[in-house]
Amino acid sequence: RRGEMAKATQLIDNEVFRAYATYAAIVLIKMMLMSLITAYFRMTRKAFANPEDTESFGKGESAKKYLRTDPDVERARRGHLNDLENIVPFVGIGLLYALSGPDLSTALLHFRIFTGARILHTFAYLIPLPQPGRGLSWAVGYSVTFSMAYKVLKTAWLL
Amino acid sequence: RRGEMAKATQLIDNEVFRAYATYAAIVLIKMMLMSLITAYFRMTRKAFANPEDTESFGKGESAKKYLRTDPDVERARRGHLNDLENIVPFVGIGLLYALSGPDLSTALLHFRIFTGARILHTFAYLIPLPQPGRGLSWAVGYSVTFSMAYKVLKTAWLL
Amino acid sequence: RRGEMAKATQLIDNEVFRAYATYAAIVLIKMMLMSLITAYFRMTRKAFANPEDTESFGKGESAKKYLRTDPDVERARRGHLNDLENIVPFVGIGLLYALSGPDLSTALLHFRIFTGARILHTFAYLIPLPQPGRGLSWAVGYSVTFSMAYKVLKTAWLL
Repeated sequence: RRGEMAKATQLIDNEVFRAYATYAAIVLIKMMLMSLITAYFRMTRKAFANPEDTESFGKGESAKKYLRTDPDVERARRGHLNDLENIVPFVGIGLLYALSGPDLSTALLHFRIFTGARILHTFAYLIPLPQPGRGLSWAVGYSVTFSMAYKVLKTAWLL
Repeated sequence: RRGEMAKATQLIDNEVFRAYATYAAIVLIKMMLMSLITAYFRMTRKAFANPEDTESFGKGESAKKYLRTDPDVERARRGHLNDLENIVPFVGIGLLYALSGPDLSTALLHFRIFTGARILHTFAYLIPLPQPGRGLSWAVGYSVTFSMAYKVLKTAWLL
Repeated sequence: RRGEMAKATQLIDNEVFRAYATYAAIVLIKMMLMSLITAYFRMTRKAFANPEDTESFGKGESAKKYLRTDPDVERARRGHLNDLENIVPFVGIGLLYALSGPDLSTALLHFRIFTGARILHTFAYLIPLPQPGRGLSWAVGYSVTFSMAYKVLKTAWLL
């Protein structure tokens, strides 16, 4: 039993993998929080996508007017989708990168810049900040993921 | 060569990791089935997004009327997107959680509740069940993922 | 320190895992390129989703006309979403599959067919090719992921 445990915790004992686990959890939690922000705007702006979600506001025609889109809801949804498009590749490529044997300091640099850039991106999207604020924060995160992918392909390449 | 195999199958020999692999595969397959449900509604409701998809119904103007949205198609698509937003964090955080050395019984509890909640969520979305059916099943899965993220951060924390 | 490194690079020393890392990185990069294609169409078609993105085209009413949808932008976005729906399950199930101890040749067959099918799918979507070109390339990738999921569940099954 202890032997099994040792095997299971072996990866998590590695410092680069621990750093990866920390930052991957943080950006995935950040992405999940977009659901709460969307829900908040749906409630306060009374803008829903499903008839059954409007029933607490009355039956029939009086509830139908809440089946609508709202600029703040759509903005939060676009931010959430952008997270899916960018955080998912980071988590996938980041795992392979963490297993490709990078220096701890180089790995931390990648993970920290990506995480900072995505948090900035969310603020830039929701406030919203004038461009190129959101564009630049997106490009920084995007470039970090490419840099990790390059290291993965250089180390693992077996086509 | 056998040594390499042994290394490769080491993780899968761990019981917590085997449980993770089982439930992660199940919820990912469940998510993939949403594509078939959307395709079914697109065919039966004749509601498509791409001109080239309507060509079997005739050329030109007669086919254009099938380029439209349909409430059942959109409902299945929203269910699919909600799966992406919730199952992806579960798979990512769940992997790190499985490697953080939890008890098998605690891990199974997390995986089973999440999987059950997401299957309920799909039924609640597609039937549809009156609220708060869908909302509660969403919140249960969401909370399980947060609980696993807490364990990951407590074990791995290296910022 | 060297011992730690050895542990960290152990998985990446395994040939099946190296093949997985290579193809997973390739399809995730392919998915990320969809962002650039969408951005290209948004720029050339002048079709944006956020008011702050149109400000370089003038202030007020003159910029508002660029807040619109465009068929080419929407097509690229649908291709990107389809990648998320299909490449994410491949990356998740593929990781478990790579750890389930398949033969290298069988694993390579799965990874190569999936990757080829998804690259074809993108061309079929963007050109666009007449159906069933896009449908078939989608179905091939979908089937490969199911085949890997079957192997994972057969090997790991612990419910």
